[in-house]
Amino acid sequence: MLRAAIIGATGVVGQEFLVSLNRHSWFEVKRIAASERSAGKKYIDAIHDKNTGIMKWHQRDPIPEYVKDMIVEPVNDIKPQDIDLVFTAIEADDAKVIEPRFAEHIPVISTASAFRNENDVPILIPGINDEQAELINIQKKNRRWKGFVVPLPNCTTTGMAITLKPILDDFGIKKVFMTSMQAVSGAGRTPGVAALDIFDNIIPYIPKEEEKVQTETMKILGTLNNGSIEPAHIKVSCTCTRAAVLDGHTETVFVETEKTCGPTEVKKSMLKYSENVSIKGLPTAPPEYIYIHDDPTRPQPRLDRNMNGGMTTVVGRLRKDPVFENGIKYVVVSHNEKMGSAKGALLLAELLKEKKYL
Amino acid sequence: MLRAAIIGATGVVGQEFLVSLNRHSWFEVKRIAASERSAGKKYIDAIHDKNTGIMKWHQRDPIPEYVKDMIVEPVNDIKPQDIDLVFTAIEADDAKVIEPRFAEHIPVISTASAFRNENDVPILIPGINDEQAELINIQKKNRRWKGFVVPLPNCTTTGMAITLKPILDDFGIKKVFMTSMQAVSGAGRTPGVAALDIFDNIIPYIPKEEEKVQTETMKILGTLNNGSIEPAHIKVSCTCTRAAVLDGHTETVFVETEKTCGPTEVKKSMLKYSENVSIKGLPTAPPEYIYIHDDPTRPQPRLDRNMNGGMTTVVGRLRKDPVFENGIKYVVVSHNEKMGSAKGALLLAELLKEKKYL
Amino acid sequence: MLRAAIIGATGVVGQEFLVSLNRHSWFEVKRIAASERSAGKKYIDAIHDKNTGIMKWHQRDPIPEYVKDMIVEPVNDIKPQDIDLVFTAIEADDAKVIEPRFAEHIPVISTASAFRNENDVPILIPGINDEQAELINIQKKNRRWKGFVVPLPNCTTTGMAITLKPILDDFGIKKVFMTSMQAVSGAGRTPGVAALDIFDNIIPYIPKEEEKVQTETMKILGTLNNGSIEPAHIKVSCTCTRAAVLDGHTETVFVETEKTCGPTEVKKSMLKYSENVSIKGLPTAPPEYIYIHDDPTRPQPRLDRNMNGGMTTVVGRLRKDPVFENGIKYVVVSHNEKMGSAKGALLLAELLKEKKYL
Amino acid sequence: MLRAAIIGATGVVGQEFLVSLNRHSWFEVKRIAASERSAGKKYIDAIHDKNTGIMKWHQRDPIPEYVKDMIVEPVNDIKPQDIDLVFTAIEADDAKVIEPRFAEHIPVISTASAFRNENDVPILIPGINDEQAELINIQKKNRRWKGFVVPLPNCTTTGMAITLKPILDDFGIKKVFMTSMQAVSGAGRTPGVAALDIFDNIIPYIPKEEEKVQTETMKILGTLNNGSIEPAHIKVSCTCTRAAVLDGHTETVFVETEKTCGPTEVKKSMLKYSENVSIKGLPTAPPEYIYIHDDPTRPQPRLDRNMNGGMTTVVGRLRKDPVFENGIKYVVVSHNEKMGSAKGALLLAELLKEKKYL
Repeated sequence: MLRAAIIGATGVVGQEFLVSLNRHSWFEVKRIAASERSAGKKYIDAIHDKNTGIMKWHQRDPIPEYVKDMIVEPVNDIKPQDIDLVFTAIEADDAKVIEPRFAEHIPVISTASAFRNENDVPILIPGINDEQAELINIQKKNRRWKGFVVPLPNCTTTGMAITLKPILDDFGIKKVFMTSMQAVSGAGRTPGVAALDIFDNIIPYIPKEEEKVQTETMKILGTLNNGSIEPAHIKVSCTCTRAAVLDGHTETVFVETEKTCGPTEVKKSMLKYSENVSIKGLPTAPPEYIYIHDDPTRPQPRLDRNMNGGMTTVVGRLRKDPVFENGIKYVVVSHNEKMGSAKGALLLAELLKEKKYL
Repeated sequence: MLRAAIIGATGVVGQEFLVSLNRHSWFEVKRIAASERSAGKKYIDAIHDKNTGIMKWHQRDPIPEYVKDMIVEPVNDIKPQDIDLVFTAIEADDAKVIEPRFAEHIPVISTASAFRNENDVPILIPGINDEQAELINIQKKNRRWKGFVVPLPNCTTTGMAITLKPILDDFGIKKVFMTSMQAVSGAGRTPGVAALDIFDNIIPYIPKEEEKVQTETMKILGTLNNGSIEPAHIKVSCTCTRAAVLDGHTETVFVETEKTCGPTEVKKSMLKYSENVSIKGLPTAPPEYIYIHDDPTRPQPRLDRNMNGGMTTVVGRLRKDPVFENGIKYVVVSHNEKMGSAKGALLLAELLKEKKYL
Repeated sequence: MLRAAIIGATGVVGQEFLVSLNRHSWFEVKRIAASERSAGKKYIDAIHDKNTGIMKWHQRDPIPEYVKDMIVEPVNDIKPQDIDLVFTAIEADDAKVIEPRFAEHIPVISTASAFRNENDVPILIPGINDEQAELINIQKKNRRWKGFVVPLPNCTTTGMAITLKPILDDFGIKKVFMTSMQAVSGAGRTPGVAALDIFDNIIPYIPKEEEKVQTETMKILGTLNNGSIEPAHIKVSCTCTRAAVLDGHTETVFVETEKTCGPTEVKKSMLKYSENVSIKGLPTAPPEYIYIHDDPTRPQPRLDRNMNGGMTTVVGRLRKDPVFENGIKYVVVSHNEKMGSAKGALLLAELLKEKKYL
Repeated sequence: MLRAAIIGATGVVGQEFLVSLNRHSWFEVKRIAASERSAGKKYIDAIHDKNTGIMKWHQRDPIPEYVKDMIVEPVNDIKPQDIDLVFTAIEADDAKVIEPRFAEHIPVISTASAFRNENDVPILIPGINDEQAELINIQKKNRRWKGFVVPLPNCTTTGMAITLKPILDDFGIKKVFMTSMQAVSGAGRTPGVAALDIFDNIIPYIPKEEEKVQTETMKILGTLNNGSIEPAHIKVSCTCTRAAVLDGHTETVFVETEKTCGPTEVKKSMLKYSENVSIKGLPTAPPEYIYIHDDPTRPQPRLDRNMNGGMTTVVGRLRKDPVFENGIKYVVVSHNEKMGSAKGALLLAELLKEKKYL
């Protein structure tokens, strides 16, 4: 059993980690850290507001027994030598300071954006660009770290990148136009999206999101050459919006391919990819990596986001694009808090362990 | 005053007509028709369920006084010679039969799709393709009608076509990718969209909608040559979705232009178009035909749909597209039940009267 | 294994039955019936619209394998001698005709209201008024039936009646004021509640609901004397509203008791009842029959409706009522489609089997 | 013209004041104050986030021209001698300090709760308890103030108190049970209610709300005797919940009356009260003070909250209560941000001016 610490354990993503790691066969949560306000308290007390009686636990699953009596520590009290790896669930600004402190000694699996754009840091989606994990060795050397930092991408990148990968492999990709309709949980909870803003509404803007998705997609689908990642030669344009949906990002994707392809070929390509995906058999891997609906009313975020515990990327409405000479369009739903966040980070940790990086 | 009949007066669109025509300075509602069930009753009784006490009136504005005591007639009892024009608010299948019966004698302004694809029928958006109204003369001749049928486009076409027109005029257009997030009111009310289906959800499919929008846009932006419309040489690809929004269709648009252009030029182009639009001064015309937000969080359907009584097309997030060599992307909100439906049809009638077609 | 038929197998409640009975240890679904339109088709085809490709399956769980190839029959083709019991998921008008036809020969567990007000028919909530099951014998004798009909109450009655029972037993009840905020799934799906009506809204009226809840509660909490049920001497007043919630009815309850009681006593009373409830150990019984939150922000329908598969009645905000000399007020959430419908009916069947009525 | 200051002019309630006072015939906004962060800026700049381009204006009406270039001041820079009255839109803790500073010199109309429970401070609903305004004289004497503070009640009290008043006058009241389904706008905007908490949900708890409503209702409906208010001898019990509604509080009310009464009598009583209400003719007074629906599906917050600019209290579902010997029950919708907040405060100022307190 590897000993893990969760940094940011009281927030929404931190809670997701606590649930996902409950009775995990490879990792054990040994230390949990949160802000000064919570530090020194038992976890169950840290999320309980004594004055109002309100319990700040935001998961559908109940609080795992193992964590209830664990003491929340200030992050600086957690010594790298006491643990084997760290999962972070914190904001980018904090991550910039905290993650290197651990990475000097041990591996850090991060849900923050702080290091995504560094040259010696891969953005890993388990099952998509595993070979970029090699960059870890260069990162360690560069920075003289014993550990390393590997971040997940932004949760909006995940579903699109996973579905583009088989298309890229089999048909080549020139251009991508994507419009996202993102769930409110993607904005977190402090304060998150106000009901007053999103009820009966669409908000057509999420700061910096489009740039992140465009850049990350090209990096993830790129190739590792001589110790650095050459971004994929794909042009990506996004419009990211917020919709009145609790969980699950929905994306409409229009793809110009190099070679001709229709819905049948693309379906076959995605399913073949799904069946042969590298992460098969890992504890948190779903039975289906990609699922494709023939029912044209699917995927829908409410009905499809929780497929296989939110770890399956669900596709539908595959059809020829009428504009591109060679092109395909489709809709994808991906669970932003599961495959796109803590559970995806856990799957990544499993992959890295299997590949001996942990 | 021209004497108008409303066919389908008890439905949502019919009610919108009744409200929009209240105290209108050019048109007077003289006859109203609805299904057999309502026929013979006073309007106020036709929309009142005596058993339950429920009033089936779906507008925010109260029922106009003038219509309360009008008798709802079976459509066949309305004689064309008693009226000067007809507004229809009925399904396509009924429209196919009913509209020609009136058009033989008098003008029919239609919100139905029945005749949109006929060669001698223009799809008119007042202010966009007024010159295509000339096709009316050919239609009358072809069909030996004294009147004619002119339909509005599908409500999803309206906002996109209005915003593409200035771009087309000033920069030329090659390709368009559009994703719509459509309001539930666009699906009507019998039964319309079930709460069970759309709460906390996106439905990524609206039957036949994408094809309609693609075809109608090219026809509307086409040119009238030798008595027939040559569709614009624009390639359009849409993905139409239903969102948890009451009113107002939101659309993300990616446009490849012939000439180079940036947000500043396109904003200028749209505003210039808006200022010089043909319909200025008509009773139902809005002070601003197109409005452009600089605030990146706009347009939002709840905040922007009702601008100028729902008659303004509201644009925002104008920015250079990173994929096309020459391209622009933006978001548009258009009120599907106002400019996109009954009020748009009324504005069209005003335009046709000004141009002496009525 | 008892052989069961589901009447109304393609509707929402029917689908709930199919899922709940999947791999059940006591009952096996042997026959399924639905309307003429579906009859003769495989189940998987009956719920699949070939023209549009849409699958009319409304459960979160996938379609159970066992039912996919079963043939949907017209109800008249199902012979009572081929089965041991019937679950009905049909409208009251149909139930009036269909249920007696089966009850003549075999037991009918009903979710319809058709027979609830008959003198020789008990309305059973498993765990609350099991002793009223004795009325079954009188019903059989009266009607010369070999089988019988036992209905569940209206789904709005369930949560309130379950929570009133321990209070009645321990402190006596004089008056009850209840306001419900009911989920849209309670109105079914054809057509159900339109999004246009309930978004950003409360509808303060559900036809006949208040009268049903008032009458049923008194009957359920009444006593069986000399072969008939004497309603409880409780006065109940309800206001039933529809809220923008998918599943789970929330009810605020104000109770005037005979004896003095405070939140501590009532909590104790409810928990004691829950621990000793008769249905413990039945296959569909939840580990907790009643659960009580101390967190004042609970119960919430979205967070609490699915506790123990929707079979637990969840209570919170227990506090002394400031108006009554002796009184308590609280909030209750009960899953209208689980304990309040098909799964509650299954639990009832289990209870009746244990008591040898099946 | 009286010169007014708005304290808290950048918040939601402050903005409501700015809109309501636009072109008012009696009052003119001369000074506006907000937090340090905004102080010194033009109003239009204070609500504009330069970094993101986002405009923090939360009203449907556009920003009134008159305020755009006004300078936002720190509250301490506003001298009482420069103005004639103050409207406050601030939190209770700030109000405790700021309101007396102004009240020493000039009248303060407050939307805050800071002084509601003081013995020499009336809680005024214009049209309901105007005679309690006399307490102002005692307050001034007690505190040696030239001005005074008069608060509105909590927005949840308003609709209920307005509808109870005619019942109290005509039939007497013993007990009241009320359940509220409150709009999210009632919780303000910083941070207000998170979408993650209220989508597809009911939150059954609003801290301190029930106590406020119970106490305020009794004070408002009480009588002024010898310089102090004797609370009405009414017992009130509330359960206050938050619903997925943007604006407009819906309340179900069960009333035990002294004398017998039915829906017809109560309707008559309310309408008579409405017709003779004291505030008739004031600039902000609605044509109908109370409106009563016969349609049992009304009032609904989305359809009824904006009646007469949100100043009408809308009632429906009047029916005899089956539990009380003499009793009535009904549903009421009141706009929490209009009659229940800034616009109600403005109406109160108009009343006080007419009565020469200003």
